[in-house]
Amino acid sequence: MRACIIAVGSELLTPFRVDTNSLAITERLNAVGIDVRMKAVLGDDLDELARGFSAALEWADVIVFTGGLGPTEDDLTREAVARVLDLPLDIDQPTVERIRARFERRGMTMPENNRRQAMVPRGATLLDNPNGTAPGLWLEHGSTAVVLLPGPPREMTPMIEAVIAERLEPRSHGVRLVRRVLKLTGRTESDVDQHAQPIYSRWTSQPIPISTTILAVLGQIELHLTARAASRDAAAAALDRAVGELTAEFGETIYSADGRPLEAVVGDLLRERGLKIAVAESCTGGLLASRLTDVPGSSDYVERGVVCYSNRSKTELAGVPAALITEHGAVSEPVARAMAEGIRAAAATNIGIGITGIAGPGGGSPEKPVGTVSVAVIVDAEVRVRTFQFLGGREMVKFQAAQAALNMTRLAVMGVQGQREWAERP
Amino acid sequence: MRACIIAVGSELLTPFRVDTNSLAITERLNAVGIDVRMKAVLGDDLDELARGFSAALEWADVIVFTGGLGPTEDDLTREAVARVLDLPLDIDQPTVERIRARFERRGMTMPENNRRQAMVPRGATLLDNPNGTAPGLWLEHGSTAVVLLPGPPREMTPMIEAVIAERLEPRSHGVRLVRRVLKLTGRTESDVDQHAQPIYSRWTSQPIPISTTILAVLGQIELHLTARAASRDAAAAALDRAVGELTAEFGETIYSADGRPLEAVVGDLLRERGLKIAVAESCTGGLLASRLTDVPGSSDYVERGVVCYSNRSKTELAGVPAALITEHGAVSEPVARAMAEGIRAAAATNIGIGITGIAGPGGGSPEKPVGTVSVAVIVDAEVRVRTFQFLGGREMVKFQAAQAALNMTRLAVMGVQGQREWAERP
Repeated sequence: MRACIIAVGSELLTPFRVDTNSLAITERLNAVGIDVRMKAVLGDDLDELARGFSAALEWADVIVFTGGLGPTEDDLTREAVARVLDLPLDIDQPTVERIRARFERRGMTMPENNRRQAMVPRGATLLDNPNGTAPGLWLEHGSTAVVLLPGPPREMTPMIEAVIAERLEPRSHGVRLVRRVLKLTGRTESDVDQHAQPIYSRWTSQPIPISTTILAVLGQIELHLTARAASRDAAAAALDRAVGELTAEFGETIYSADGRPLEAVVGDLLRERGLKIAVAESCTGGLLASRLTDVPGSSDYVERGVVCYSNRSKTELAGVPAALITEHGAVSEPVARAMAEGIRAAAATNIGIGITGIAGPGGGSPEKPVGTVSVAVIVDAEVRVRTFQFLGGREMVKFQAAQAALNMTRLAVMGVQGQREWAERP
Repeated sequence: MRACIIAVGSELLTPFRVDTNSLAITERLNAVGIDVRMKAVLGDDLDELARGFSAALEWADVIVFTGGLGPTEDDLTREAVARVLDLPLDIDQPTVERIRARFERRGMTMPENNRRQAMVPRGATLLDNPNGTAPGLWLEHGSTAVVLLPGPPREMTPMIEAVIAERLEPRSHGVRLVRRVLKLTGRTESDVDQHAQPIYSRWTSQPIPISTTILAVLGQIELHLTARAASRDAAAAALDRAVGELTAEFGETIYSADGRPLEAVVGDLLRERGLKIAVAESCTGGLLASRLTDVPGSSDYVERGVVCYSNRSKTELAGVPAALITEHGAVSEPVARAMAEGIRAAAATNIGIGITGIAGPGGGSPEKPVGTVSVAVIVDAEVRVRTFQFLGGREMVKFQAAQAALNMTRLAVMGVQGQREWAERP
């Protein structure tokens, strides 16, 4: 089955806003085997909405609108659909009363405008909106299903789920789609892609074919695997085998197969093993501590962090001898190691991390160009120190350095050796 | 003039990727007075591309494609356009040679596939691509201009700029559009909107009307003002007056009228006045230090930061007396103030900041619910302490607390009193 998603709202045609509702809708349509073949964004204009809807009616099996169901005169999705299908718009009195009651529960009087939200093209079915005043609408035109949903994601999300479960899944031809996301770090995108291609190519000729997408930013790679089968169980079993093949190839380069970000994976490891952590950061400027503390409950294992932006603070906060900085420079493996040792001793934690580097754009030299970062991780008696050469602008260097420190921590705690070089060569 | 933007690529129809090229294209079209009335995303399918293009040809004055110009058989934009306009595709030999030379400069042989990128619908004009192998194409069909651009933003961006300057600006009917973005913090969206509405409404009836959009997240509000006029100068002058009216109403609640983020505004103030800063963070977990150090050159004024996630670290790193924590609790104004005083003294800076709060989801109590955050800012002899009640999840509480600390710092350095309460009442 082929779907078209139409996002409605003039603000989505400005340079400031992008339609993201369609991603969530696509995910859910795909899950019941419905392909999205076109997405459109249209403004609050009756003629243009009607034209776009008419065009989609010619080919789509499912048309999902999001937006344009509000109470103002700019909200025209209902009118456009009714006009194209040549249906009168009736006021649904129970809906008016429901909206009125919703206002009254908050001690407010329903503005007359809101009656517009109770307008129903004759023959349409109302869809309950648990989080707002605008009901959704379901219509069938020939073999095409037309779904009207509100624009706010909080209102739209539970409604698309209900429509899928109650109305679209039964219509879809038994094809089910299941996805897995693997997250990797410590290798380049081209390296991962080259090693994964021979594996992918075997999957396309399987009885249950699996398609793949690679999404990468510097320091993080995601492999999205999608299987289509007659049942969810069959698709899941095919994906389990596929994940197994990738795990055999990439091993501990894969840090997550369940959506968790790297800081949560590290946090769960620390919690499991009863370890506490303290960090001393220079070029990452607090980003590593901030990511660690983005995880709920991280106060159980994060003892402290220090941001040593001046040489004096490296000495005062992380106990780095001033002579060491003079001898090796602030960006050096000995200083990173001294920062890790110093913060670990001060905090009396199992783990200490030291990061020092050049985030840029200034501060580089021929010997230590922008992107040079030394990271030291100490877990009890084990010391690991590495120097990286990262690409990208200031914020990307910060991100990759934090990512490398988290990954070195993960591997050290797991007792796994050997992270490869990951900085993509220019 | 009315434009349609068509983004091409099956990956843009998955739940993982959103078309963002259209934002940059919209901004540039708008600047020369061309309205974007529809955006479409289509997959790599010849029939579907042809259908979408045919539909747009019926109404658009300008159609801009982005994507589908690569060398593979999936790249079908050229073919779809040629089919609909009934034009033969010729191989442009100079383009083949140019692509071949580009490969040779890198010591590579041009794959035969890349000849596809030299295919030109007869009569079309080639558009130079300084950053890639795929040239763009320009065609005119009746009064409609059709522009084909590659998908990678690095290639697309300079090309749309050249097309606008050389080809579309001369066709547009002399209407010019200029934008300004004002950023505000310290007040709620509904409060700002209510006070701005009477001002906006005067603008719509002016000789040069100004339209407005409000974009808000918790802790930050952006007002986007757009003026259309026969000349850029006239539009800019109207916007200057409009910005003046909003400044009279909102005063120092507006922190930026030139796109700078709050951390850069604070950084510029510190640099101008030769002030140095040190921060002690609990619930923000390093986010404040990380934002301050996102600004290039921030090592000139950021001396250090500490993340005191444990009570012991509050005492050891920021000199907070243990008795003070026992007496008032770790989340309290006296502790925030002691953190600011302690870090300022240790770092010997002009400015010290202390932040302590409950980011959630755990840790709240009836007296101090999740979202309670105390912030202290000390600038030389002046001490400012406030307690906020923020809404939203853990990351939003962290963001708002960092935002509040930056804004209190900005106002204190400027010697301005009085930030209002900003937490939106539920």
